[in-house]
Amino acid sequence: VDLDTARGAPAPGVNQADPRPGMVELGPGYLDPALLPAALMRRWVGAALGRWGAQTLCYGADSGPMPLRAALADTAARMDAMPCPADQVLTTAGTSAALDRLAVLLAADGRAVLTEAVSYDLGREIFVERGVRTVAVPGPHDDVDVAELRRAAVRAARDTGRPPALYLIPTFHNPTGRVLDATRRREVAALAEQLGLLVIEDQAYAQLHYDTPPPPGLRGYGADPERVVSLYSFAKCLGPGVRLGWLVAGPVLAGRLSADAARRSGGGPNHFAAMAVAAALLEGGFDRHLRWLRGRLRMRRDALLDALAGELPGGYQACPPAGGYFLWLRLPPGLPGESLVRAAERAGVAVAPGRRFGGDGAAVRLCFAACAPERLRLGARRLLDAVRTVYP
Amino acid sequence: VDLDTARGAPAPGVNQADPRPGMVELGPGYLDPALLPAALMRRWVGAALGRWGAQTLCYGADSGPMPLRAALADTAARMDAMPCPADQVLTTAGTSAALDRLAVLLAADGRAVLTEAVSYDLGREIFVERGVRTVAVPGPHDDVDVAELRRAAVRAARDTGRPPALYLIPTFHNPTGRVLDATRRREVAALAEQLGLLVIEDQAYAQLHYDTPPPPGLRGYGADPERVVSLYSFAKCLGPGVRLGWLVAGPVLAGRLSADAARRSGGGPNHFAAMAVAAALLEGGFDRHLRWLRGRLRMRRDALLDALAGELPGGYQACPPAGGYFLWLRLPPGLPGESLVRAAERAGVAVAPGRRFGGDGAAVRLCFAACAPERLRLGARRLLDAVRTVYP
Repeated sequence: VDLDTARGAPAPGVNQADPRPGMVELGPGYLDPALLPAALMRRWVGAALGRWGAQTLCYGADSGPMPLRAALADTAARMDAMPCPADQVLTTAGTSAALDRLAVLLAADGRAVLTEAVSYDLGREIFVERGVRTVAVPGPHDDVDVAELRRAAVRAARDTGRPPALYLIPTFHNPTGRVLDATRRREVAALAEQLGLLVIEDQAYAQLHYDTPPPPGLRGYGADPERVVSLYSFAKCLGPGVRLGWLVAGPVLAGRLSADAARRSGGGPNHFAAMAVAAALLEGGFDRHLRWLRGRLRMRRDALLDALAGELPGGYQACPPAGGYFLWLRLPPGLPGESLVRAAERAGVAVAPGRRFGGDGAAVRLCFAACAPERLRLGARRLLDAVRTVYP
Repeated sequence: VDLDTARGAPAPGVNQADPRPGMVELGPGYLDPALLPAALMRRWVGAALGRWGAQTLCYGADSGPMPLRAALADTAARMDAMPCPADQVLTTAGTSAALDRLAVLLAADGRAVLTEAVSYDLGREIFVERGVRTVAVPGPHDDVDVAELRRAAVRAARDTGRPPALYLIPTFHNPTGRVLDATRRREVAALAEQLGLLVIEDQAYAQLHYDTPPPPGLRGYGADPERVVSLYSFAKCLGPGVRLGWLVAGPVLAGRLSADAARRSGGGPNHFAAMAVAAALLEGGFDRHLRWLRGRLRMRRDALLDALAGELPGGYQACPPAGGYFLWLRLPPGLPGESLVRAAERAGVAVAPGRRFGGDGAAVRLCFAACAPERLRLGARRLLDAVRTVYP
């Protein structure tokens, strides 16, 4: 199945980063190429071309092809324990592209965006580049405090004259792995309803649970549909190169997004890939792949956690995630993540500095999705070596 | 080859428009599904997966995969008779997406955009939706007048404090089919150089010539590379559903576009499709398909022109195009295109009203790419029937 290993060294310049021989890469949030469904994609493309022929190459429906949207509406209804009409589902060119579109709308409307204090760095940068004012809202333990959110939302509404948006990663958070519990999901939904917020719920990792499934998305807690837009992605389970995601929005916002001039000109995003993914969903291959992938990633998470268990000195705290790609490692207070990052690179393992994501910076992010279990164990040993060389 | 006809009726909701039985569709700028390379795409996807394996599914390089950019740089060098370094080539998610990205930058910079008086309607709308001020510059015979461009550019620079951009479709213009001659290309390049304009050169149709190849793109006339960004597309020759295009820009603009946060987050656009197209270019299949397609479209253009030749009453003027998708039909002065559009619909042929594209509105656009020759002849007969029912 893994054509990659069959071919020898990867071609340079094809992907965002070329592999560094000898380095255990726990830094970027990449999925191991060996876990990407290369052979399945070939089959799904064939199935789409067999089923829909040249319709896969014509301009795609502006909101995305209906067979795919209908299947995704079923998925959303299941995940949120809440009906989801297909006309509230839009395909996207992935979560980054969806954030970009929303940022353009928010900038035009003069609305600010609240983010968690610790959040996906490039998500925040997309808002900033589009001219949207962002406010990182403090919370204890790199987490969300709903009372703080309320205060920040009231302040932002006063400053801009418009209720702000809130960019939130409730499920298997990047970088912390945290799952926002049902109580706070309900509180955030109620807050959005009261203050007229638009919650931009980034659910990119939500389908990758390794223990029990997560609570429903915010849409499932009864807020007005226009108060929540939920962003999903195929990047984390089929491969980021497919550049396909989807969102669920209230009818007004969904209509505004699909009436965008760029969509009316070019049609829905990545129509050809969308039709291949539609074939994958309709033939059941996607669900089988997802279940298989969850099992592989669970083993990897466990390999990394086991390799670190009992080995970390006092003051270090690993936050075991129930899904997603990331293990968040809190460092002793006052120890900058950058110090550990440098020591780790010298020891032959790359990790991501916590400061990149906000917060106090005394943390690093470890991605366990990019390496096989044996290599994760090697990376953990190298990281533990590095830990012994740095002091707060 | 044509899987579509083998399957019977197209599935509804998959594409932008579902076919209307009985109507000859000369309105939308669509390529006939029978001319789309469905079987070839299956082969090219297989070739890409065989050659690059899971690299086709990983995050694509932010500027696009280097094997594709290198091949496109060769194409640009050939078309513009001017060397083109691969690092000035970026992949795009099609021309609409490229216009959208440029519009966001121009809006941030406070620059206006000059457009031709008659121009691609949705191109202009993309600028407007992103908050860019657009100025339609008058020209005789729905064409470009360089002296008018100069005046408008000076005015816009004075009003905004920044030299404006110029959105120009020099080759096989949409909707008029016109080719800007070499003399005016040179003049526009010189104007851009003198006034510091950014010429956004929409070359979406430039590879579809049916007689002699068009003059080089504006880049070929010696302007500073930062003064011209050339937009190309695979939409018109491989299919718009592939959502892939490319651009050539000066090093500064290319760097700014590829450093965009959404690209750093999600990688280059449509990486999976881009790798399939890279395989098509490298194995020579793309060039073979392009030559075949030119031949088919030439026959269609000729079928439509022949069917109208000598049959149009006085005051009507068909503008024979040397490439692209469109025949621009000027109507007698004072006859609104909408009158003919309505009469034509009643007669069973759809055409696009000229006013949609700007200008005086006494014109309609006929797309000869969507229908086989026999159907074009039927459409022409119906249109001639309609012509006889309307009077200025």
